[in-house]
Amino acid sequence: MDAQTCLEKLRYVGVLNFATVGLDGTPQVRCISAIHYTPDTLYFFTARGKEFCRELLRDGRVQILAFTRYKEMIRVSAKAVPVPRAEQKKYIDRIFAEQPYLSNVYPGDTRKIGVVFAAGDLQIEYFDLGVRPIFRACYTIGSGKRKLRGYRITDRCIRCGKCLRVCPQQCIQAGDPYHIQQAHCLHCGSCFENCPVQAVERRT
Amino acid sequence: MDAQTCLEKLRYVGVLNFATVGLDGTPQVRCISAIHYTPDTLYFFTARGKEFCRELLRDGRVQILAFTRYKEMIRVSAKAVPVPRAEQKKYIDRIFAEQPYLSNVYPGDTRKIGVVFAAGDLQIEYFDLGVRPIFRACYTIGSGKRKLRGYRITDRCIRCGKCLRVCPQQCIQAGDPYHIQQAHCLHCGSCFENCPVQAVERRT
Repeated sequence: MDAQTCLEKLRYVGVLNFATVGLDGTPQVRCISAIHYTPDTLYFFTARGKEFCRELLRDGRVQILAFTRYKEMIRVSAKAVPVPRAEQKKYIDRIFAEQPYLSNVYPGDTRKIGVVFAAGDLQIEYFDLGVRPIFRACYTIGSGKRKLRGYRITDRCIRCGKCLRVCPQQCIQAGDPYHIQQAHCLHCGSCFENCPVQAVERRT
Repeated sequence: MDAQTCLEKLRYVGVLNFATVGLDGTPQVRCISAIHYTPDTLYFFTARGKEFCRELLRDGRVQILAFTRYKEMIRVSAKAVPVPRAEQKKYIDRIFAEQPYLSNVYPGDTRKIGVVFAAGDLQIEYFDLGVRPIFRACYTIGSGKRKLRGYRITDRCIRCGKCLRVCPQQCIQAGDPYHIQQAHCLHCGSCFENCPVQAVERRT
């Protein structure tokens, strides 16, 4: 798996879930398929009157989620900014050419109410619950930052082996200290809760 | 369409998208299929160590989104609270019985790291872009609140007809004042932007 394969998989899924934080602080998520893909940027269309547009203009932070036919989750964190005014028409027309159904929704000139945002500098999380052990990985595109999540075992570890026994995925390796195989970790917190000496720390 | 049919459709989709606001204020969304449905409540499973769980415990506000095979979007806004401690085991076991794959992810006793949340008092938005004109509706279950979105035309309307001409869905009816058929409105903002006397107001 790699960043480009993840983007290709998003393209195959087609209809993606775009989450933002609402103007009133509530979680917001909606389906979007009006997307044009390049190797480093997702361009997507919305209309200026939608709350989604106002949320993006205020903040720009968006998380994009897809679930593939192969039961993989792909999640992209990015900052979305409107494409420069002079290029709006070009990108709107490109997205409408790639997704003909859009011309039924916004016929003729009415597409002019649209605005195209660009999401580059991507952090991509890949998560597959369908393999055993489960598999996760994190990739970046551009200057996207890799946010550490989950847990780590510190030098306070007394090598009692409790964490290994309670791990649903058996993803902890004995050693000094014991070690979490991050690629196979659910982030469920079993090791964190059960360590008798609090040797397990959150990475976030 | 009605609230119960929407819930049934969610159940058929199976894997839903759950959005929350992250501990750092960022939008967060992930796929969840560990769900038990009753006519008025969605029960869902997560693990105590996940950020998702901490986000819910802090705030509880969640938005749940599905895209059906028939190209409908169904979006549920709710407040999620943990099921009482004495009932956790019952709900965990029920969800694991309904979704056998969960026992591969959390084998044996390791499911004890789980916590089941209940989301009742639902606001449900139904949105179908595949019909012409598009169709949207809003339903509630329990004491879920109906949040008004989109636009309305006020008495300042001078009946010039500009809004009707720029509406992608032709969902505005002539009258005194002109009137937006809310069931067919995209919330795109064309009428709002183009009204020469600012007679169109946001409902939000």
